[in-house]
Amino acid sequence: MEKIISLQNNRIKNIVKLGKAKERKTQGLFILEGARELMLALSAGYEVDSVFICPELFSKTDYPEVLSGIENSCKFEVSEQVFDKIAYREGSDGLLTLMKPKSHTLEDLKIKKNPFIIILEAVEKPGNLGAILRTADAAQVDAVIVCDPLTDIYNPNAIRSGVGCVFTVPVAVCSSQEALMWLKQNQIKALAAELQASEWYQDVDYTTPTAIVMGTEADGLTDFWLNNSDQRIKIPMRGKIDSLNVSVSTAVITFEAMRQRGF
Amino acid sequence: MEKIISLQNNRIKNIVKLGKAKERKTQGLFILEGARELMLALSAGYEVDSVFICPELFSKTDYPEVLSGIENSCKFEVSEQVFDKIAYREGSDGLLTLMKPKSHTLEDLKIKKNPFIIILEAVEKPGNLGAILRTADAAQVDAVIVCDPLTDIYNPNAIRSGVGCVFTVPVAVCSSQEALMWLKQNQIKALAAELQASEWYQDVDYTTPTAIVMGTEADGLTDFWLNNSDQRIKIPMRGKIDSLNVSVSTAVITFEAMRQRGF
Repeated sequence: MEKIISLQNNRIKNIVKLGKAKERKTQGLFILEGARELMLALSAGYEVDSVFICPELFSKTDYPEVLSGIENSCKFEVSEQVFDKIAYREGSDGLLTLMKPKSHTLEDLKIKKNPFIIILEAVEKPGNLGAILRTADAAQVDAVIVCDPLTDIYNPNAIRSGVGCVFTVPVAVCSSQEALMWLKQNQIKALAAELQASEWYQDVDYTTPTAIVMGTEADGLTDFWLNNSDQRIKIPMRGKIDSLNVSVSTAVITFEAMRQRGF
Repeated sequence: MEKIISLQNNRIKNIVKLGKAKERKTQGLFILEGARELMLALSAGYEVDSVFICPELFSKTDYPEVLSGIENSCKFEVSEQVFDKIAYREGSDGLLTLMKPKSHTLEDLKIKKNPFIIILEAVEKPGNLGAILRTADAAQVDAVIVCDPLTDIYNPNAIRSGVGCVFTVPVAVCSSQEALMWLKQNQIKALAAELQASEWYQDVDYTTPTAIVMGTEADGLTDFWLNNSDQRIKIPMRGKIDSLNVSVSTAVITFEAMRQRGF
């Protein structure tokens, strides 16, 4: 295995560059940190470009077997100093992988009978996207559709806060217009979450094919979704402030839907 | 109004120092950014030490009236360059206030008949604490009790992600032992959230005096709470990962409790 000890090594300099979304897109690569996340990505059929291993840290991993299926020519040993430069987590287990993204089109989605879908409009914070993907995994929703996103689904912070659920949850990225057409084609009703809605979320029926549509915390949904949804729903806000964290409101509605569906 | 244009001004250097929890404790001050948050703090009876105003940014605020009740001797005008050094948010509205914390003891809590309480053990991430305080405000829970915290409730990121709900929600900080005694004294049952619990959260009755006890994402609850709680509850995790974001799981259980209580 090639050993990299120089911070000036071209592969190391390139990993730093891949911190930017534009660079990830151009190169067709994203950064994945952590052995557990790599396990999830490999099980989901993702392809490895190269993997960087810091033996001092990796010796403590809970997933030593993760490297067994990866070709030696893709593996690089790095010094602690080098790993420190490329890692972005605290308490890392010494593994950083460059991987090839998958396609995330609506056509790729395989939905089951009576689906439940989460649609996010213009999601901005990677941490919120990650937390929503964890919810989507736990609730086993059929898909998360990310419309006109302001963050990249392979943003390192989204992957980290989503503990790798971008690999376990079917995700499509498209425009709001495309998502709406897809819902109509599949006869899935759209419930738009907003503050001034007339229906309480807990009084709505989620047992038929349903998509919930969530806007940004700052501005809520655009008129496009408010005008084109089948119903508008709201969560009781009984205190002094007028909004919840978007990952929280998404989870509250999603788990109420699952409760009605008998999990 | 005194105008500060030097980054070397002692008041400015002190604000930077107050970024540290230890310094906030020693000086008995915390940092509050934003006009809306200041409105909430003032309504809750918090006392201002000093307020720093950047006119170029503050001219665009939605809350121009917030400064009207504050004495001129506490107000300082700062240049954009100085504000940039002390501000930690993007899109700030040009107001940063040093304030005096309140007492947060269990004795300060005034609970109503049939209370619902959120207890957090060893909460670590300020962003999660903030999101939970927003949920607590929206659901109008009687109190959030923060046991043995690893973050300060006045951490600037907790205040920011909590959009000022630390002022609108009754919060006590204490040891787990003290919290448990307080629950027993007030005849409030404790429901401990954990992964291996026998009861599904949605099958439990929350209509009597109830506290939910939430652990950290990494380690869950300690044995202290697992052994001393009245019941253990879990959220269905049907996917590949085994935990939700703690602010998400807290909200899912809290809103189910509110649903059962008829909001």
